[in-house]
Amino acid sequence: MAKADKLPKQNQDFNAWYNTVVLQADMADYGPVRGTMIVKPYGWALWENIQAALDSRFKATGVENAGFPMFIPMEFLRREAKHVEGFAPELAVVTHGGGKELEEPVVVRPTSETLIGHAYSNWIQSYRDLPVLLNLWNSVVRWELRTKIFLRTLEFYWQEGHTAHASAEEAQERTMMMLDAYTDFAVNEAAVPVIPGEKSELERFAGADRTFTIEAMMGDGKALQSGTSHNLGQNFSKAFDITYLDENNERPYCWTTSWGLSSRFIGAIIMTHGDDKGLKLPPRLAPIQTVIVPIYRNDDEATAVMAAVARIENELKTAGVRVKVDNRDNLSPGFKFNDWEMRGVPTRIEIGPRDLENNSVALARRDVPGRDGKQFVARDGLAEKVVALLDDVQVAMLAAATAFRDANTEDVDNYNDFRRATAKGFARVWWAGTNEDENRIKEETKATIRCIPMEQPTGTGTCFFTGKSADKVAIFARSY
Amino acid sequence: MAKADKLPKQNQDFNAWYNTVVLQADMADYGPVRGTMIVKPYGWALWENIQAALDSRFKATGVENAGFPMFIPMEFLRREAKHVEGFAPELAVVTHGGGKELEEPVVVRPTSETLIGHAYSNWIQSYRDLPVLLNLWNSVVRWELRTKIFLRTLEFYWQEGHTAHASAEEAQERTMMMLDAYTDFAVNEAAVPVIPGEKSELERFAGADRTFTIEAMMGDGKALQSGTSHNLGQNFSKAFDITYLDENNERPYCWTTSWGLSSRFIGAIIMTHGDDKGLKLPPRLAPIQTVIVPIYRNDDEATAVMAAVARIENELKTAGVRVKVDNRDNLSPGFKFNDWEMRGVPTRIEIGPRDLENNSVALARRDVPGRDGKQFVARDGLAEKVVALLDDVQVAMLAAATAFRDANTEDVDNYNDFRRATAKGFARVWWAGTNEDENRIKEETKATIRCIPMEQPTGTGTCFFTGKSADKVAIFARSY
Repeated sequence: MAKADKLPKQNQDFNAWYNTVVLQADMADYGPVRGTMIVKPYGWALWENIQAALDSRFKATGVENAGFPMFIPMEFLRREAKHVEGFAPELAVVTHGGGKELEEPVVVRPTSETLIGHAYSNWIQSYRDLPVLLNLWNSVVRWELRTKIFLRTLEFYWQEGHTAHASAEEAQERTMMMLDAYTDFAVNEAAVPVIPGEKSELERFAGADRTFTIEAMMGDGKALQSGTSHNLGQNFSKAFDITYLDENNERPYCWTTSWGLSSRFIGAIIMTHGDDKGLKLPPRLAPIQTVIVPIYRNDDEATAVMAAVARIENELKTAGVRVKVDNRDNLSPGFKFNDWEMRGVPTRIEIGPRDLENNSVALARRDVPGRDGKQFVARDGLAEKVVALLDDVQVAMLAAATAFRDANTEDVDNYNDFRRATAKGFARVWWAGTNEDENRIKEETKATIRCIPMEQPTGTGTCFFTGKSADKVAIFARSY
Repeated sequence: MAKADKLPKQNQDFNAWYNTVVLQADMADYGPVRGTMIVKPYGWALWENIQAALDSRFKATGVENAGFPMFIPMEFLRREAKHVEGFAPELAVVTHGGGKELEEPVVVRPTSETLIGHAYSNWIQSYRDLPVLLNLWNSVVRWELRTKIFLRTLEFYWQEGHTAHASAEEAQERTMMMLDAYTDFAVNEAAVPVIPGEKSELERFAGADRTFTIEAMMGDGKALQSGTSHNLGQNFSKAFDITYLDENNERPYCWTTSWGLSSRFIGAIIMTHGDDKGLKLPPRLAPIQTVIVPIYRNDDEATAVMAAVARIENELKTAGVRVKVDNRDNLSPGFKFNDWEMRGVPTRIEIGPRDLENNSVALARRDVPGRDGKQFVARDGLAEKVVALLDDVQVAMLAAATAFRDANTEDVDNYNDFRRATAKGFARVWWAGTNEDENRIKEETKATIRCIPMEQPTGTGTCFFTGKSADKVAIFARSY
């Protein structure tokens, strides 16, 4: 049950706002093992919609789904030196199975490149078997110390794509293709205006030659890495001996990629769009797109109103709208309005006896607060109006998030302005620094390179930190 | 690549046939950790179709999906005495996380009743919160010694439904409702003629008051438990303190159920329908419902044939048929026919230059071997003919499996006939034995009570084993 009045204000304590809204909107709860989460039906339905939107994009590029085991022999992790270095500190290790101590402990997958490498080495024989384009929907485990629901939990849900190719070019093309799929999904389904770009060497995936990312700005100005696509070069091919017989009867190593987007993206949606009233879900992904709240004072009114509600519900379902009727009889309409605003349902229909007389309903949009967001519309053709309003809300939410991001992104050319800019949002700077420079900036400001955006200005500039000539700009920000 | 000629015959070595067909039809592979499996894209697509068919049935009864963590505090398992007794021998235990030994080891879920109990205890306050109807799609781990792909693996995929109710009657009603959903799914989607019934006390789920099951007969006459639905009574409510404030201001315990169907069902499909040519997949669940094999000898023919193939492919897609064109140019048509028969694709279209001239195609059904299963049909209205043929195949497969099961099920009234009947199939007997009797029969014949079928004859009979008067019949069989 929502208690919107107890929701902390975003600008007073964004962190407390986030934790409270996640619980009050019934998205998730804490699991009994420290750092684990339970995704409740409302949060899971959002995840299912995210899955469907991504899955169709993957399949359109020829990717097929498969299921790989959660257990990996410890020895596999060690085969790729940087990979084990990156993941060893976060592993969960099973030492006992079936009442006995295992001869070889197994780890719960933190990611599946090593298992995939093992399988691809067996499966790929000749160039005719290439490319291999697989995706896994599963959960993975990283034993984190500081956790936060959806953003960083011991176990999280995601998809991990793994492909193998005959050439470096094709692997790089696939890496970018999936980055584009993520960008398209984020912008057009989630209304989250992400910046696609490349990670710096320090922020690269453990075992990748190149890592690409989509970066989003949260409501507090911090960045959230929202999906990544890795060109793994021949690192895992060499570690797992993934070779193929080519048309010249030679056995070169394959070129592989991996790419993932996780339930963390739910956090991105919450923190990109949410406000002091609670969640604000993009219509295309919202589990409930419109809620109908009936209004009546007695049984006679209830009978008439509920009959109209049933007809409207049917019309909306026929029009493909995900609709919910709030028929709880122990709660007031006002409470229900707040409750569904808290849960971020994009549109709301209110209908009472006077509306029946007037042959109209009240139609409210979640993204515009108060009276401005509410209109009385004729009952006829209501479903079409709701569909059109959902489209409007989707467009308006993307526009609002983009405007917020742009207003909090600053082009700066000196360290003082950089500190000010990264204290509240993104700094875009000409950059020619080293890894050491990047580390020093991180220590001094907590800001890191979120990405080198794909979209670059022409020409060159002066690095804000080193004063050297720079041929690219970078986005710096504090991040989750 | 299929090697149908190397497939062992079912009647010579059913077990070898099964293991070979699973690998050759590209359904699955072994994982690197002993007893784990990799479900390959073809097997996973079948699982996705199973998931969709079940999920819509669950949602139609008001069930919602959620995500629960894989880790359970060891202490939770111990709270329900029979539950821990049943599952303790099979647990995988994580003792180290994040590079340190854990203060409290956690187990990887073998099933989630305990986690659900913990959550429901927190979530359920009053009668207004009831019923709670959740389902989880996930994987669970049971550290088995003897494993077999799909049938018994360390980790397997499944759904586990968990519900909480205000009354014993409602919990029992839900238990039966989900058993009915499984039966409907098995019979009408998978063409697997299961027998719904109740388990004996010895075969009950660890922690249940009553366990119901759907039992299927495999091609070797053995039974496969294919889905179970449990009435948990108040066992888990009491262990986890799941109570609710009722309308009289009292706090009774809830009544709970759980029910699951797993990737083991893929094994049921393989072993119910498969034959010496390989898999035979029911059209409603088949990842590929029809395969088009083009036939040509030179480039000119190829151009004309492939143009017709593209048109047919489009027509079939428009008609909602899951179609695949086999355009591999290094394999003969004959090889392709065998390959797709091995993979169990229900129908096949062959088209070559002469078919173009005749304005016809060859249309073959997988369930009828040889020439009898192949007809030449006019090109016009082909999509409708394929759709109709798929319906025919679905019906014929259920009929064939039912006839096989009935031919191998015997009503017997003495132990000698019982031994003979259970050596090759199911024995249906009047039963009034004790747990000790059941155990003795198992030791002597390997046959166990698969279920007390819901459908019972009228009247009473004489127990085949004890000679006592019996008021119910039981199905005995050897089982997987």
